[in-house]
Amino acid sequence: MKAEIINIGDEILIGQIVNTNATWMATQLNLIGVSVRYMVTISDDEEEILKAMHYASTRSEIVLITGGLGPTKDDVTKKTFASFFNSPLILNETVLKHVRSFFEKRNREINQVNIDQALVPEGCDVIPNENGTAPGMWMKKDKTIFVSLPGVPYEMIAMMNGYVLPRILKENNLPAIFHTSILTQGIGESFLAEKIEAWEDALTEKGIKLAYLPKPGLVRLRLSAAGKDQTVLEKKVNDEIETLKTLIPEYIFGFEEFGKETPTLEKIVSDLLREKKQTLSLAESCTGGYITSLITSIPGASEILKGTIVPYTNESKQNLLSVKPEIFTTVGAVSKECVEALAINVRKKFDSDYSIAVSGIAGPGGATDEKSVGLVWAAVASAEGVTSRKFQFGDNRQRNIEMAAVSVLSLLRKTLLG
Amino acid sequence: MKAEIINIGDEILIGQIVNTNATWMATQLNLIGVSVRYMVTISDDEEEILKAMHYASTRSEIVLITGGLGPTKDDVTKKTFASFFNSPLILNETVLKHVRSFFEKRNREINQVNIDQALVPEGCDVIPNENGTAPGMWMKKDKTIFVSLPGVPYEMIAMMNGYVLPRILKENNLPAIFHTSILTQGIGESFLAEKIEAWEDALTEKGIKLAYLPKPGLVRLRLSAAGKDQTVLEKKVNDEIETLKTLIPEYIFGFEEFGKETPTLEKIVSDLLREKKQTLSLAESCTGGYITSLITSIPGASEILKGTIVPYTNESKQNLLSVKPEIFTTVGAVSKECVEALAINVRKKFDSDYSIAVSGIAGPGGATDEKSVGLVWAAVASAEGVTSRKFQFGDNRQRNIEMAAVSVLSLLRKTLLG
Repeated sequence: MKAEIINIGDEILIGQIVNTNATWMATQLNLIGVSVRYMVTISDDEEEILKAMHYASTRSEIVLITGGLGPTKDDVTKKTFASFFNSPLILNETVLKHVRSFFEKRNREINQVNIDQALVPEGCDVIPNENGTAPGMWMKKDKTIFVSLPGVPYEMIAMMNGYVLPRILKENNLPAIFHTSILTQGIGESFLAEKIEAWEDALTEKGIKLAYLPKPGLVRLRLSAAGKDQTVLEKKVNDEIETLKTLIPEYIFGFEEFGKETPTLEKIVSDLLREKKQTLSLAESCTGGYITSLITSIPGASEILKGTIVPYTNESKQNLLSVKPEIFTTVGAVSKECVEALAINVRKKFDSDYSIAVSGIAGPGGATDEKSVGLVWAAVASAEGVTSRKFQFGDNRQRNIEMAAVSVLSLLRKTLLG
Repeated sequence: MKAEIINIGDEILIGQIVNTNATWMATQLNLIGVSVRYMVTISDDEEEILKAMHYASTRSEIVLITGGLGPTKDDVTKKTFASFFNSPLILNETVLKHVRSFFEKRNREINQVNIDQALVPEGCDVIPNENGTAPGMWMKKDKTIFVSLPGVPYEMIAMMNGYVLPRILKENNLPAIFHTSILTQGIGESFLAEKIEAWEDALTEKGIKLAYLPKPGLVRLRLSAAGKDQTVLEKKVNDEIETLKTLIPEYIFGFEEFGKETPTLEKIVSDLLREKKQTLSLAESCTGGYITSLITSIPGASEILKGTIVPYTNESKQNLLSVKPEIFTTVGAVSKECVEALAINVRKKFDSDYSIAVSGIAGPGGATDEKSVGLVWAAVASAEGVTSRKFQFGDNRQRNIEMAAVSVLSLLRKTLLG
């Protein structure tokens, strides 16, 4: 099945935002065996949208359009759909009910502009939008399916996952395809490639594709196979994973099954804590609340998280977390001694089963003769004691924060697994 | 001048990489008054490239193509150029000299594949590539200029800056262009549209375009104008901004000048605190460290941030931040009383000039009969006292966290400005 993605938005064309919608959609479509052949970005202009839709109908079997669905005057996609399909806009009662309840829940007044969101072209299948008021549309002209979705990423993603992808799968006989990603941490891409070279070389003749997908602090290895029989593909890929497990056991921390969410390290440690009915607290200096925000982004975080202290000054490390003043005058705040004291004391303070502490120099400032930007000390404490590790990352502040987070979460995972 | 960007690369179409080249090129082209009307991504396939070039020649005056210039077999752009322009590939001595010296400098042997990099279509202007071996190409067919550049970002960027942009500027009498974005907070897109309707309606005849760019908790309004005289355009847009300021003064928190970074609320409050030489501490319950992570993502955060407590349990609110136990048994943790106590006490605890506190139900769990998911109380404390606000957001956890962050940072900004 040949797909085309059309993104509507002047903000993309003037370079104000990066088109991450196209990337996310392409990834998901490819995962279910739909091949994205074209990505096109055009402006919020009726004539341009019509031209793009006509051209797409000559070359693509499904056209996914994002953007231009907002309630304001510069959003023209719905009007253009009505004109392309020669269908009048009619009020959809289900959508209107949703729009009304959307505003009621938020105790906000509804106005005519909001009510008009419930207008859709006659004959279109409405794609429900749980996170917003603009409905999506699914319509077919001759042999081409046109799908219209909002440009707001989290609305679009929920509608793709909840409606568009399942419907494509259901209504089409797509080739069998199987992907699994192996999540590794603690080894760089080139070193990993060297370690698994022989295994990788043998994959091609088995009809399996390997992709390296690096992220700060970790590398995802994606194995893909396409063919006729799903069971055969699964066995083929899983056999290779079994071999890989024997080659790099210490670096693998999880697997991403086909079509499921990527298990993040914060999700993995949260699940482990929940299973064990144990709790966590954190002392985050250089990561400045970032690790806690990762953990609290997961629903149900209050079952496992007692709390966090971000002691961003030496004074607060001393007053709130009882780090001895002589530590600052001798080894300094970025040290084994300091980070271990932070981990031990934050665990006591919150009366949690486990704790994490991080202290480092995120940069760009803060380096000394002995300690350069990117130096990070991390510790994990439990009833059994405290473990700490030293890391030397690079000179990009945000990347150092992310690398520190991934590294200490990985350390906590190993501690939790014993 | 109407421009089109064509990016060639399967890695973009399968969603493996985000197309940041297109964004960078669009920004630069817009800055010099070239209007990017289309961005197209296609695969490394001769027929597809030819079709895209033909179609582009019907609608664009300049077509900038990236990718497919490498030395390997899957790179076909140069061959396609030769065929599109009906020009044989001939050896360019200047390029060959550059390729040879490129390899010599790196002490690497040169092979036939590398030598073939010096082949270019007859009649093309070569764009020098200081950072690689693939030359760029500049050729004209009828009224359309075609430019081919490598897909490697730093090679492409250097060639755009060193050759393409200066040549476009030199050979064309480009219109002046001016954009400014107005950053608003505290009002939804549709209500904003209603409030400024008359003002907005009058923009069109003044030749000014308005775009609404919503993000969680805020809306960016972008005004754009094109014309002959830069000074006239600036005045025209700035006059409209002055009018807008009188219409929605309470919602505007900043301006984004064209080509400059978007000022975020965390950056704005950090800068205000730095100017005043004042400090901040935070008590983040439902936002779980997110606001602190925004503030600590900015270099130099240690000058203004004393620290944060994330009291994720009632117990920790009581033990670490002295919230009275009767608050939990009467009004509960998500209340004016609790959030004000958190703000006042965290300020004392860290001895900071200002403090922020947030307590709410991020969801999906945690709702009660009286309090639904999305309810958030936020407070700001200073030497002058404490101010609190109640918000009712939606039912998406991550979005509620982001909306709460933006709302309380906006409250802090107003407090800092008096």
